[in-house]
Parts: sequence; structure tokens; C-alpha cells
Amino acid sequence: MTNKSFGSDNITPAAPEIIAAIAAANTGSLHSYGDDPYTARLTDLARDVFETDLTIYPVTTGTAANALALATLTPPYGAVYCHETAHIATDECGAPEFYTAGAKIVGLPGADGKIRPAQLDVPLRRAANMGVHHVRPAALSLTQATEWGTVYTPSEIRALSDAAHANGLGVHMDGSRLANAIAHLGCTPAETTWKAGIDVLSLGATKNGAIAAEAVLFFDAARAESFESRRKRAGHLWSKMRFLSAQLIAYLEHGLWLRNAAHANAMATRLADRLATLPGVHLVQPVQANEVFVALPDATIDALLQDGFEFYRWPAPAGATGPLIRLVTSFCTDPADVDALLAAAKRAVNAPNPP
Amino acid sequence: MTNKSFGSDNITPAAPEIIAAIAAANTGSLHSYGDDPYTARLTDLARDVFETDLTIYPVTTGTAANALALATLTPPYGAVYCHETAHIATDECGAPEFYTAGAKIVGLPGADGKIRPAQLDVPLRRAANMGVHHVRPAALSLTQATEWGTVYTPSEIRALSDAAHANGLGVHMDGSRLANAIAHLGCTPAETTWKAGIDVLSLGATKNGAIAAEAVLFFDAARAESFESRRKRAGHLWSKMRFLSAQLIAYLEHGLWLRNAAHANAMATRLADRLATLPGVHLVQPVQANEVFVALPDATIDALLQDGFEFYRWPAPAGATGPLIRLVTSFCTDPADVDALLAAAKRAVNAPNPP
Amino acid sequence: MTNKSFGSDNITPAAPEIIAAIAAANTGSLHSYGDDPYTARLTDLARDVFETDLTIYPVTTGTAANALALATLTPPYGAVYCHETAHIATDECGAPEFYTAGAKIVGLPGADGKIRPAQLDVPLRRAANMGVHHVRPAALSLTQATEWGTVYTPSEIRALSDAAHANGLGVHMDGSRLANAIAHLGCTPAETTWKAGIDVLSLGATKNGAIAAEAVLFFDAARAESFESRRKRAGHLWSKMRFLSAQLIAYLEHGLWLRNAAHANAMATRLADRLATLPGVHLVQPVQANEVFVALPDATIDALLQDGFEFYRWPAPAGATGPLIRLVTSFCTDPADVDALLAAAKRAVNAPNPP
Amino acid sequence: MTNKSFGSDNITPAAPEIIAAIAAANTGSLHSYGDDPYTARLTDLARDVFETDLTIYPVTTGTAANALALATLTPPYGAVYCHETAHIATDECGAPEFYTAGAKIVGLPGADGKIRPAQLDVPLRRAANMGVHHVRPAALSLTQATEWGTVYTPSEIRALSDAAHANGLGVHMDGSRLANAIAHLGCTPAETTWKAGIDVLSLGATKNGAIAAEAVLFFDAARAESFESRRKRAGHLWSKMRFLSAQLIAYLEHGLWLRNAAHANAMATRLADRLATLPGVHLVQPVQANEVFVALPDATIDALLQDGFEFYRWPAPAGATGPLIRLVTSFCTDPADVDALLAAAKRAVNAPNPP
Repeated sequence: MTNKSFGSDNITPAAPEIIAAIAAANTGSLHSYGDDPYTARLTDLARDVFETDLTIYPVTTGTAANALALATLTPPYGAVYCHETAHIATDECGAPEFYTAGAKIVGLPGADGKIRPAQLDVPLRRAANMGVHHVRPAALSLTQATEWGTVYTPSEIRALSDAAHANGLGVHMDGSRLANAIAHLGCTPAETTWKAGIDVLSLGATKNGAIAAEAVLFFDAARAESFESRRKRAGHLWSKMRFLSAQLIAYLEHGLWLRNAAHANAMATRLADRLATLPGVHLVQPVQANEVFVALPDATIDALLQDGFEFYRWPAPAGATGPLIRLVTSFCTDPADVDALLAAAKRAVNAPNPP
Repeated sequence: MTNKSFGSDNITPAAPEIIAAIAAANTGSLHSYGDDPYTARLTDLARDVFETDLTIYPVTTGTAANALALATLTPPYGAVYCHETAHIATDECGAPEFYTAGAKIVGLPGADGKIRPAQLDVPLRRAANMGVHHVRPAALSLTQATEWGTVYTPSEIRALSDAAHANGLGVHMDGSRLANAIAHLGCTPAETTWKAGIDVLSLGATKNGAIAAEAVLFFDAARAESFESRRKRAGHLWSKMRFLSAQLIAYLEHGLWLRNAAHANAMATRLADRLATLPGVHLVQPVQANEVFVALPDATIDALLQDGFEFYRWPAPAGATGPLIRLVTSFCTDPADVDALLAAAKRAVNAPNPP
Repeated sequence: MTNKSFGSDNITPAAPEIIAAIAAANTGSLHSYGDDPYTARLTDLARDVFETDLTIYPVTTGTAANALALATLTPPYGAVYCHETAHIATDECGAPEFYTAGAKIVGLPGADGKIRPAQLDVPLRRAANMGVHHVRPAALSLTQATEWGTVYTPSEIRALSDAAHANGLGVHMDGSRLANAIAHLGCTPAETTWKAGIDVLSLGATKNGAIAAEAVLFFDAARAESFESRRKRAGHLWSKMRFLSAQLIAYLEHGLWLRNAAHANAMATRLADRLATLPGVHLVQPVQANEVFVALPDATIDALLQDGFEFYRWPAPAGATGPLIRLVTSFCTDPADVDALLAAAKRAVNAPNPP
Repeated sequence: MTNKSFGSDNITPAAPEIIAAIAAANTGSLHSYGDDPYTARLTDLARDVFETDLTIYPVTTGTAANALALATLTPPYGAVYCHETAHIATDECGAPEFYTAGAKIVGLPGADGKIRPAQLDVPLRRAANMGVHHVRPAALSLTQATEWGTVYTPSEIRALSDAAHANGLGVHMDGSRLANAIAHLGCTPAETTWKAGIDVLSLGATKNGAIAAEAVLFFDAARAESFESRRKRAGHLWSKMRFLSAQLIAYLEHGLWLRNAAHANAMATRLADRLATLPGVHLVQPVQANEVFVALPDATIDALLQDGFEFYRWPAPAGATGPLIRLVTSFCTDPADVDALLAAAKRAVNAPNPP
């Protein structure tokens, strides 16, 4: 049956490998709260995958991962700088403010979803000038891939983290779609994270195959000092941790995360490339991950909705005009589903205008 | 193979029915964040099981359930009254303080793990006398079954909730082991909750068979007003909610929760009854759920530990003396495991004292 | 001696009437924490001055007044809309976030320091569309006089509060310089506050003559329910409240507040009108209160600083260019001090350019 | 006229020296927010008085001083140990919880208002055993003089702070009545504070002569790192700081604080010694500061109230019985007022019992 849902990658089921891993972990008594062999193995695996010593803490949701990570970097009287469309700024109902006990999330513009190092200059100078009256600059948070489906190169990240570190900021990456970014870049996980200056990483798995599993990775153990207390206190410490760790093991080992992401990316590219050939349709952003932002006539949007396709209308970025939609593909998007959408769009575009 | 772990009911795997339910839910795209048929069905089911209109919100951990529930009842300048051994007071790293933005958790004594209505008099009078200088009484939280493995009768709960309501307090039940209490009481779920005056319930499933699933139930919809924002903000809103709801459906339908709990209780009773016949061994609390608190000679404790059995030493309640341990049974405790422990205890008790 | 300080109105001493009031209140024992005749009289007086029933709570600082007021209007998961230059957004080190337990302060642009009702449309629609993922719109905060020294008319305030109320928002006024606004408008205190839809007012006195005294006024008693607990909990309840109330009585009775403000405004107008006649100098904002924002050549700025005058360089508003400074007058600015600055500016402007 | 108020030392007016100091500071423009000569002089003076390098931050209330001080020592997931009657535990409407973002205040018993080092053993061991499930021990807070009017000796404080430091706790002193304690001990300010191991001191002045002035003193500058941001964010940074610093200068210089306290103590001793000679009357605590806790017949209490005397009935400490009242003297208590109370008590005690 055709799947007409392009609303998000979080409407997906789990990858079969993840379900199998949960079932396989369901045997015997094990110490609770992470003192189990699955969690130990996850740590070893993450160190292999990221080619460095690190600490990895599984949690359930991306919002929890981000908020907990930021709370380790930012005091209550601190400021976190991020893109103005960042999930932490707009989609988490104030979770970072909650977890940091009231820090300020400062959004910076950028038409392609990315921020540039020079954008930090004004707010940092302002903070310095205003002294105690202003929140203290504490962290920079980068989203990889961005909310506009674009991807920072490792050197772009390096430039940003250098600027941040030079000003005493910690650097966080919201890697809710990190696998998609790595699949696009063809780099190693290390190259787009700690080698580029990331201190703390929120690693997503849920959108890309897990039932509910994310992780916070500290590349600098000293920054993790408060994490375990904060996680417990937030109710994010699973007693049967094995079931969270098992998902992440299945995700990271044997390359499942990158295969799934590469598939999602390929489906987005297929969708974008062909949509862009239709008259009156154009891509609003380069497609570098699994999201396609496309401007098209209102009548076409309506026709697709009428055909039963699901997706969101989206606010235009700076400089763009016209009705805009977001189409998201996933690890389980079928090429036939993409083609069904393309066919429907072609029909709609070519249909005579309604009277 | 003999399972020698009696440390907690959270060291268990999941019940096979729960794993099967997760696997069965792993099909096709579904709207995220709870707008899915599993979550709808869970609500219907919970209304049937509790015989009333209600709102049910799945979350991942008991700490999250408790803290979120209390935050809906208690302002930052409020006080929550509970037993001094309550999980919310001692085992959650300050989660209620975090979620309420700094309310005070006030512990009241009670040798059997229960509090009595008259115990509210002194703190409530004190709060009234001190006016704005004192935190405002806001909620009463009862643990069912208690941390001492005892169970409140419905009329005991009614007396407490009447006293609380008469003073304007909301009444919360930490039902981390509610199934065990109901199995012991032989009452309906309604009788020990809303019919006895409970306003908000944390319903546990993890210790009794889920991989990670709890729920907050509001019997008075008006009290739930802030819940969804608080849950999202805390990172406790699963995008793939179906996998949380499916666990709870499997738990509640066809009586799995009560069957599992009855088994755990029976194992505890078997363990307690036979231990109590050994010389120098006596029960510190009546065994009404799945926890056995037993005083026994230090040498016996050491012998059991040496035999590989796992359990915790426990601080004595008011009035008790001597070394004390806690033994916890679960839905998957095998009678043979109980008997192995009993045999080891018997050997130890009868062994000549070490020189 | 010439006073060369135009940096702020908070560098001033207190008005002699205020010091006299403190000394006069220093007699005998009185009940503490506001249960004293001064505080009772303040309430009566405020009701007279504002021509309505109201509740008034003295506090020490404007930051405390604002943060406490906003905390009564905004839940932790709420959003407060204000001008992007508002004191609550930029100058209070995150006090509103602290007091609300993490609400979001959303700044809206406006070249003259004012916001317009239509600006609420986009964020409110966005919040509605995003549901639980977005913070809930909770309050609108208006600054009167604004941070750009301009003044809302009562009908501008009414239009904003109507838009806010229609969307369920409470309306707060940061009246740190309310007296200056009233003196400019020539309206009654009621007309620019509750009659224009203000629910909660932060009334400033410190900048305009007190040693340290502000007040929060609730025109709707129902909104004040949590205030006293919040004030105590924040350490803002004076035990010897008489000394705070006495300042506010002296401030409000016999028109001291409006006389002081009218003088400060007149000094600003004198300064602005004459500065504007100098070549290369122009006003960046209309001068409606006691602040003058003026663009002038860098060399002139340097010359004034070299002469010992004190003031701040200021970031330009949208659409403006060139070096900009802020000059602030106060209740105790001497016309001779203004004229000294004018003379120095004239000299500097006419000086030959440095080689 | 006879002053019949013995309810608290916060019902007093200010000392004339304090009012004079405020008036004397009311001259000319000065930089705001503490960058003024009064505040600089206060720092020098405090260093002289305490004979060490230190940082001193004026604030308005004792609650603010305590909560801000504790927030520098205690993370949100931390625990503060104190006597169960400590002001921070019972009289501040949860201010420490607010300022720390939800830390736990753990009260320890002690019939004389003091705690002993050995009392820390059980909670610290419990915290160590429970790991991440338990809040982390972070601070010890001692009240000097205590809430029962008793005074720790320097060696008692040293023993407590040694135990605290050995376990990684910071040590705070609530010195709301520190002057009374020093006057009783006859020691130097240094001996009862930093020389005895105190890290952070809340120094009270309001009860002992100021209109509203307290200070937080850090003997270890490293601990003060977050203080200024926290104070500003809490709305406790006065813009016209001179008026706060001037009070504290007048308080500390020329020994006003110790003279005032010695007088208050002498009045309490006079009251206590003579009351204790009356039949049926006995002191519940040794009188070492300016508070007298005295058990006396209900009929006597009623008679005193009927005579117009003001004081509070008080809950009995462990081991005491019978009706109990608290009588508080102050820097401005007149011996004649004490004698009037004594005469009334004598009459009441000797009156025939009511039929």
C-alpha cells in the first residue's frame, strides 16, 4: 500500500533490527540503571565509532538529550546561541530553559539554516559591555543536519567552534539527524563532531530507526560531571537501561544508522530532483539530508493534500516567497511512495487552473 | 539456572506479552506524539479498567510520572506531604523539586510505611500560623504499596484524602506497585484510587513487566491543564508514542498487570512465611505486596551474600533493631529461586558460629 | 559644581522629600512585613491616585517588580511578548526567566521602541499551530516610557491590550519611568494604565527620587493570588516595610512623582532642542520623556568625553546610522548642567577636525 | 511610653546612626550598581573588621542573603544540611529551593538549636550509598546565634566545619544575629567565622539597627564566582547602592553593631534572670543572645497578652513540655520596658487562679 505520509521522520515505525535487539535483550535479571553489559558494550562501541575516548549516556528523546546537554554547559544566568529555527529554540516548549533553570536561548538568523562565526560578534560584545546586567555567554548549539535540511561541513563547524571556544563557550551539537549529515558528507563521525570542536553531542536514533533512543556524548569527560544527577532528577534514567542501550548498539554497530540515513537521503534527493523539473516548482534549500523544502503553487499544494498526501506548510526563510512545504523522507520510505507523490505533483501542476 | 537476585523488581526483563506488543505495534506510519490509535485505545481501556472518565498520559519512568503529577498539584511555593521513606522524598534526586520549581517535600514518620490523617494536623497548623513565611500546603502523596511493602486499605486512603481535601490539598498516589496492592486487597482499581479520593495517579508498569512504561492518570480533568506542556518541556513526550501506549495496553488488558502482581506477591509470601520459621529470623513488616523486610543475624546475611544471593541491607524502621535486609520478588520470580534462598538461609542459620 | 553625568537617572541621589519620609518613619515599634500603618496608608493613597480599587506591593528594585509581576502572569511553559529592547529582555540578567521558572521572553522589533498590535499575529499563530511543542502565549509586557524615550498614547496601549486580551494574554506595564510618561501625556495615571487595559503595573520610583522603592500594582485582585508567596520566597519582603512604604507615600502624595518627572522631561527637551540645532547633530528619536538619543560625529563624542561628560554610546535602532549616544536627565538635573553640556557640544562641533 | 512589643527584633525602627548615614550619603551623582565610594569603603571596612581578605556584597534582606549564599554552594541536585528550626528551613517560604533551582534542605534535630558533627554521618552515608538516586551533599548551614537563642562556640563551629569540609561540603553561616553571638562570646568576628571554617557568611544588620541591609561575605573568593549574576538576576542589585553600603558602614564602623547587640543581649539577660525567679516559670533554653524562651502557666500568658504585651507562643523543643513563649529584645529595648513586663508577670503569677 502506498505510504502518503511525508510529514516527518518521526511517524515511522522502528527498524526491524531495533525491535530484534529489544527482544534479544529480554533475558534474565540484570543490574538496573545502566550497570549492565549492554550499556558497557554501548560505551565501547561508541568509542570505536567515534574513534576517541568518550562518555555516552542513553536517554529517551531528543528534547531530553538537548536540554540535559545544554544544562551541563550553561548556568541559569547563561546564554545559548543557536540558529533561530533550532529545535531547542522553537520546538521544545522551553525545555532548555527548564533544564538550565532559566538560561536564555538566543536565536541567530541564517537563510540556509546555518549560522556563521561572525554572527557571534555582536551578541558577545553586547554581553561584555553590559556586564552583570546581561546573561553570560555560555554555549553555542549547532544543529547537524540543520532544520532547513542543509549540512555544515566539518570546516564550517570548526570555524564556529573556534569562535565559541575563543570566547569561553562550550559547543553543543544537536545531532538529531547526525546520521543523515554524515551520510551526506561521507566523512567519519569523528570529523563532524569532536575533531571539528564539538564538546557535547546529542545523537539521534529515534527518527532514523529506534523506538525511542537518543544519547548524549561527552568528548570531554570533565563537562559530564553533573550529567548523571541531572538525568536522574529529570526522570530520564531508565531502570531497565538494557532496553535503551540495546537499541543504540543495534543502531551504531554494523553501520545501520548510516545505511538508514543514506537511504532516507537518497529518497529526498530523488524527490527533490524530480520535483524541481516541474514548472512553477523550485527548491528553497539545497537538499543535503532527508528534508525537501519546496515552493509550489497553492493549487498544487491543495491538490496533493486532496490526494491524501501528508506534509506541513512551512514559513518561508529570509528572502524566499510563495507557498512552501516541507517533505521528509525516512529510512523506510519506499521509492514507489516517492514516485507516487511525484506523479500526483505532476498531475496537479499540469491541471488547468480552477475557474 | 537459579536466579539469585532479590535486589529489586527493576532488575527483571520484560514480560513476553510486552515485547510482543511492541513488535506488533511496529507496522506502518502513524501520527506522532500520541495522535495514534494505540494511544486512543489506551485511554478507552484505562477508562474501562478504572470504571470512570479519566485522562491518561504515558511516560517512561516512575520518577517522571511522580514529578510531573506533583507539578500539576503544587506551585513552586508549595509543600507536598508524604511518608518520610517515600520514593519522591529519598530516591529521585530531587525530581519533584525540579519539576515544581522548588516546592518542599515534607516527610512524615510511620513505622509501617503509612501515614495517618492526624499527622497532617501539626504541619498544616504550623503553615497556617506562619502565613507567607511558610510554603503553602498543596498536595498529599501516598505510596501504594508503600516503601515498606505494606498496603493502605481503601478506607485508610479515604480518611487521608478527606483530611487532605478538607485542607485544600490535592491527593496524589505513587502507584509504582499499585498492581501489587490491588492484588493484595482484592479490590477494584477504582476502589483504591478515585473512589478513595485520589486525584492524580502515577501508575507503574516497569517493575511489573514493561520495558519502560508508566502513566499519569487524572481523575479530575481540570487538574491536567498544564500536564501536556510540562511533559513536552521535560522531554517526556515520545514521538513514537505507539510504543509506549502499546506496552500499557498489553499491561492493562486481559489482566496481565494483576496476574503478574499476584505472582510476585505470592512469591513474597512464600519467602516470608518460611523465613519466619527460622530461628533468629523475624519479619519486620507484614508482607502485603512483593517486598520482604526481614531481620536476621549478621552471620546469616553474610552467608547468603557469600552464596551469591543479591539484596540490600536496609535501615531499620522506628522501633526495630538488628540487621535488616530487603528481599524483592517479581512477576518472573521462580518458586525454585525462592526455595533456593530458603534452603541457603536455613543452612546459614543452623551453621555453627564462626570462631 | 557642574554635574557632568548624563549616564542614567539611577546615578542620582534621592529627593529630599524621600529622605525626610524615611527619617519621619523612624519612630517606635511597628508590626513587621507590611502590617503597619504606612503600608496601609500607601494602599489608600495608590487607590486615590489611580482612581480604582487595587492591590499595591512595595519591592526594592525594578527588576524585582518586573520579574515578580511577570511570574504571576506566566507559567514556566509560557511566553512573554515585549519590545526587543525591553529591560526585561536585555538588562535583567534573565530575571523573568528565573522568576517564572523558565518562561521565554520574545522580543519584537519597532524602530521607535514601541510594538504594534499586528506584530502579535505571527507569533500567536505560530504558537497555535505548534501546540504543545511551543511555549504558550501568556503575557504582553509594555514599557512606558519606552527604552527609546518615547511614550505610548493611551489609545496605543488600549489597542495592544485589546489584542492581548483577545488572545488570553495578561498585560503588564514596566512603568520604571511611568511618571515621565504621564508628565508627557498630561493624562491621569488611570488613563495610561488600567483604563487602557493594563492588568499589572511595575511602578518605578527609584530613578525618579527614591533611594530604592518600586511597587507592583494589581488592578485585578485575582491575578495577585501568588504574589505574596513569590515576593517572600524571593527575599523581597522587607521586615521593616514602613521604610519602603514611606518612600512610596512621599513619592505619590502631593504630586512629587509628577513634578520630578516633569522637571526631568523639561531638561531633556531643553537638551534635545538645542542639540538639534547644531550642525551634524540630529535626534534619533522624538524626546517624550527624560532620555535623548542623538547622533553626532565621533569627534564630537570624543570631545565631550574628554571634557568629562559621562554618557553611553548606544546601538542604533533599525534604519539609523552613525555614532549614537544616550543622554539621560533626572529630577535633579540643573539647567546649568544642561547648558554646560550644550556649550561643550557647540565647541566640539565647531572645532576644526583633528589632522 | 512603655513599649510592650517583645514579638521580634524586626519590629524596631532603625538606629539613629543608620538614618544619619543614609541622609549623609544623599549628595551628588554617583556611579550606580556598587561602583561608588561607599561600597568601596565598605569592602575595606569589612576586611578590617574581619581581619582578612574577603568579598562583601550588600543585599536587602536576610532571606535574600541566605538564599543567594546557598545558591553559590549548592547545585540544583544538592542537599543543604541545617538545624530543623533554621530560618532557611522553615521561615523563608522556600527561598533556598527557589534560588538553588530545587535543592533539598535537610533539617537535623537538636534540642538547644545546635547541630553536632556526628549528626552528619547518617545522611552523608545514606547519600553515598544511594548514589545518583539521592541529592548530593553540598553545604552545611549554621545559624549564629541559633533560632533558640543559643550560641555556638568557635570550637563547636570548627568541629562542624571540619566534618563538612572533610566531606566536600561548603559551610555557610546564617549570621542574622551574628552581632549578638559575638557580643556574647566576646570573641573577634574572625574567630567565629572564617577562623572557625566558615566559607560564606550572611551578615545581618536589619534586626540590629538598619532599615534594610544585610550582606553576603565570601572568605574564599573562588566561591563568589556566580554571585553577582545571581544577585542581579534576583533583582537584589540596588542601582543606588550607596544607600545600602552606607547603612552597613555605619553599622560596622565604630562598633555600632556590637554595642547594639550587647544592649539587646543585656536586656534579654535581665528579663530572663528575673523571670526565672518567679514561681512556675522556667527558662527553656540558656539565654545567650537576645531571645528568651520561657515556659510559664497558660493563665500567666493570657494575663500578659491582656495587659497588651506582644510576643509569640512557641512550639516546644524536644524534651520540653508546657506552654512556651518567645520574648525578643533589641538594640532599642528600654530597661523600663523590661521591668514593666516583669512587673506584669509577677502580678499574673501571684494572681489567684480564675475560678
